[in-house]
Amino acid sequence: MGTPFDVPLEELRTRGSAKWATYPADVLPAFVAEMDVRLPEAVVRAVADAMAAGDTGYEVGNGYAEAFAGFAAERYGWDVPVAAARQVPDVMQGIVEVVRVLTAQGDGVVINPPVYPPFRPFLQHAGRRVVDAPLGADGRLDLDALDRAFADATVYLLCHPHNPTGTLHSRAELAAVGELAARHGVRVVADEIHAPLVVGDAPFVPTTTVIPDAVALHSASKGFHLAGLKAAVAVPGPAAADLARIPEIVGHGVSHLGSVAHQAAFRTGGPWLDEVLAVLRGNVATVATTLAERLPSARWRAPEATYFAWLDLRDTPAVRASGADPSRLLLDEGRLAAFRGTDFGTGGEGHVRLNLACSPATLDQLLGRLVTTLA
Amino acid sequence: MGTPFDVPLEELRTRGSAKWATYPADVLPAFVAEMDVRLPEAVVRAVADAMAAGDTGYEVGNGYAEAFAGFAAERYGWDVPVAAARQVPDVMQGIVEVVRVLTAQGDGVVINPPVYPPFRPFLQHAGRRVVDAPLGADGRLDLDALDRAFADATVYLLCHPHNPTGTLHSRAELAAVGELAARHGVRVVADEIHAPLVVGDAPFVPTTTVIPDAVALHSASKGFHLAGLKAAVAVPGPAAADLARIPEIVGHGVSHLGSVAHQAAFRTGGPWLDEVLAVLRGNVATVATTLAERLPSARWRAPEATYFAWLDLRDTPAVRASGADPSRLLLDEGRLAAFRGTDFGTGGEGHVRLNLACSPATLDQLLGRLVTTLA
Repeated sequence: MGTPFDVPLEELRTRGSAKWATYPADVLPAFVAEMDVRLPEAVVRAVADAMAAGDTGYEVGNGYAEAFAGFAAERYGWDVPVAAARQVPDVMQGIVEVVRVLTAQGDGVVINPPVYPPFRPFLQHAGRRVVDAPLGADGRLDLDALDRAFADATVYLLCHPHNPTGTLHSRAELAAVGELAARHGVRVVADEIHAPLVVGDAPFVPTTTVIPDAVALHSASKGFHLAGLKAAVAVPGPAAADLARIPEIVGHGVSHLGSVAHQAAFRTGGPWLDEVLAVLRGNVATVATTLAERLPSARWRAPEATYFAWLDLRDTPAVRASGADPSRLLLDEGRLAAFRGTDFGTGGEGHVRLNLACSPATLDQLLGRLVTTLA
Repeated sequence: MGTPFDVPLEELRTRGSAKWATYPADVLPAFVAEMDVRLPEAVVRAVADAMAAGDTGYEVGNGYAEAFAGFAAERYGWDVPVAAARQVPDVMQGIVEVVRVLTAQGDGVVINPPVYPPFRPFLQHAGRRVVDAPLGADGRLDLDALDRAFADATVYLLCHPHNPTGTLHSRAELAAVGELAARHGVRVVADEIHAPLVVGDAPFVPTTTVIPDAVALHSASKGFHLAGLKAAVAVPGPAAADLARIPEIVGHGVSHLGSVAHQAAFRTGGPWLDEVLAVLRGNVATVATTLAERLPSARWRAPEATYFAWLDLRDTPAVRASGADPSRLLLDEGRLAAFRGTDFGTGGEGHVRLNLACSPATLDQLLGRLVTTLA
């Protein structure tokens, strides 16, 4: 039986998006977060219908929040407050607008490197000060580091699931974060864009169900490969009344067609997503087996969510011998484009982030290039 | 022969966008700037192809600027500097980012009310101070008002063609603005989103071809009814070197599918646009005839560009008798949704902006409701 990943490599190479149009054809791309999938048919149809009808004007109404609420109820058992949610152009723009409402110019915002690289420049561009609270040695939240950072901050930008490690914060961890934040008067803003992509055994626990005054950002863009059709929603916890202070004009940046596509995905894409997750789980298992057998000097933890493998390659023979950054070796010698670990900040040295959202056949090629280059 | 406006009213009412989903079915909408058209076939096909291929990842490259440059060369005889141009998420976000580069917090930015209502809140949200230089009594730029305003400002946000009046600034006017701005050290940022929609005899003169250190924002969203698929480009004049200072992350907000759609429009949509313009020119003539014959107390100037009729209705019998805002009368009694003039700022009292981008049949209904309500 086919899966959404049954797209030939030669066809993928005709895509115009960043994953497939950045490097020459002999490079296998595993850097930017795009999936090598065909879209759910209902999403393709919804967009085609809107285009055929010329339904390409301005977004109106709260259909996006409604569609997401149905998905969140089914997938996470989460009762999303539709009327209080605010549609935003995309997750990063939503984060910036929420942070602007919750902070003043120059206020500190805590992030947990290694983490999604754009967090830092987006916050700086918004005139906020970035305060680092690095992940612990176990790759999870470090409460002592958070305690210190919160003393110098107004907002905590939580990445949940964490990118690039694929960590899912547990209910207990979120509760501890909530207590710490409350003690310091710090508000929690959670980027939950990867929530649909749970590939381990632990469940995704929505941040606002544990921290009532948190605000979470959700989107279909990662789970359904719709980054090119932008749309997202900011969901307040039951004790967060701030979103009404986001100006009306922020909604002008919302794409109606993006919203149409995402709504179709949230409303009808569940079975497609399950097929995608089955492939991703298999891919994670393949990475585990392959590294154990052929590159045991690579250290990693299998992701609980996301489609990333965050690999510590410092002890691999080629990196030890050359002292080079592994992403450089992989690109130059292996013709494999991985995301450079240092781009994610402190803790990224000698690491790369690999994108596993490809067919098992492509994954074999990818791991072959990785092992051959570094072993 | 059919035109792009051959879309039945009952089909338009099934659209989910703001124009058709805001009011009950007995209201004829003529407020928000959407066109009642079918899209160019090549645009529909380009989006369908990308969706079918799952080409829905992140935007990369400068295809948008290239596509626009071809269109600008053909339509305006303008040699667009492709390499120096910057793709941005949409025109307003582009304006904000350009203004941020050219100004500091609290700096004054000049606008010309009555003007596109979001200018003011977007600038204020960016921490800039709005300085009004109202249009003159002739509905054109008032150089004396600009001279006074420039003394208190760093940037001039020019609307060209002007929304809502449909005025095209002439080469002589732009030259005078350029001299004045240079004398005051004010930089010009031009919103040229309506440039494709020239419906009079005067040509569109690109601002940067007259004011070399100006920056212009362009998009296919208005000319090709693609507001729901966001994309735009900031084009610097030959003496404007500032766009390189816009941070890389601003490009993260760009929609790849929006870009695909707009590029197809710019590259192949010329004949479709000419059909649209022919209908719009006819509609403008119909408004002129109808008002002269049936509502001579309405004052207006036919637009040189845009698909708006900016009507001064203060002397119409119903407004004089009731003292009410005409948009209120039109909605309540005529079941016609027009854009309230006061939303455009100083000079908008007693005015409405009517959207003429509809079929001639719909325009007849629209004018019928207008005349019946106000005569």
